[in-house]
Amino acid sequence: MTATIALRPIGFVRGGRKEPFNDDWDSVTATIELDTDWLDADAIMGLDGFSHAVVLFRFHVTDPATIVTGARHPRNDPDLPLTGIFAQRGHYRPNLIGSTVCRVLGVEGTSVRVRGLDAIDGTPVIDIKPYMTAFAPRGEVFEPEWVDDVMSRYWKKPS
Amino acid sequence: MTATIALRPIGFVRGGRKEPFNDDWDSVTATIELDTDWLDADAIMGLDGFSHAVVLFRFHVTDPATIVTGARHPRNDPDLPLTGIFAQRGHYRPNLIGSTVCRVLGVEGTSVRVRGLDAIDGTPVIDIKPYMTAFAPRGEVFEPEWVDDVMSRYWKKPS
Repeated sequence: MTATIALRPIGFVRGGRKEPFNDDWDSVTATIELDTDWLDADAIMGLDGFSHAVVLFRFHVTDPATIVTGARHPRNDPDLPLTGIFAQRGHYRPNLIGSTVCRVLGVEGTSVRVRGLDAIDGTPVIDIKPYMTAFAPRGEVFEPEWVDDVMSRYWKKPS
Repeated sequence: MTATIALRPIGFVRGGRKEPFNDDWDSVTATIELDTDWLDADAIMGLDGFSHAVVLFRFHVTDPATIVTGARHPRNDPDLPLTGIFAQRGHYRPNLIGSTVCRVLGVEGTSVRVRGLDAIDGTPVIDIKPYMTAFAPRGEVFEPEWVDDVMSRYWKKPS
């Protein structure tokens, strides 16, 4: 077996939802509080010069016994095509890491206020990166049709 | 100290650059080979239905002694503003995790062929996620001026 990689959380999500619920995430605000045992306010200096950040986090309430290493139907919906775990974004994935672009509402001391982070209260945060437009996809973007079904209510409920 | 998180690489980057060089990355093609000790071709079934993927990887050649936990000038350029490590994308960051959107050129067996992945030969890969347009930033996007300087040659050399 290949060597494991050990990570230390840089902080935790505080506030926001207490339970995962995959709908209307852009209505949720929360705070990322840095772990002040090893990080201070300097670490997020200038982050509020960016509109958005990429937050990497651990799906810490997902039962490791439910991790899918092969294929499954997204959201367990048999009407959606059988799809490899690395071709979908479900939390039940090897290494249990989420990665989400959310809005940076402000920085204060060792806290970052965010909107639209799909991680619940208490979630360990592994990294924060500024969203740079240069890191958007280069070239034509396409995706399968089933993605529309799955994502239609994820950020915002249809009015 | 908070508990550490143990990750197992899902595979490795093969081919592409042997050394990091922060210029013209979109000219580089490489292959992500899944670790077949625990994953098989099912895990990437359907990934080629997406134009792009988000690849999470470990900056495995970065000397941990060089990790910045506070602020520094991007690319160590004193002309650029002093900036927190979580407001820049340098590899010398806590947890040494990179996250990049690259093009999916094709899937064959347990391999994914990619273009524009800024990770060198031998890099441990932690996750692959499909790029979904719904996961792009919601709302107005802005970033500081210094980003333009840093990123101007990153993907493509000016002609």
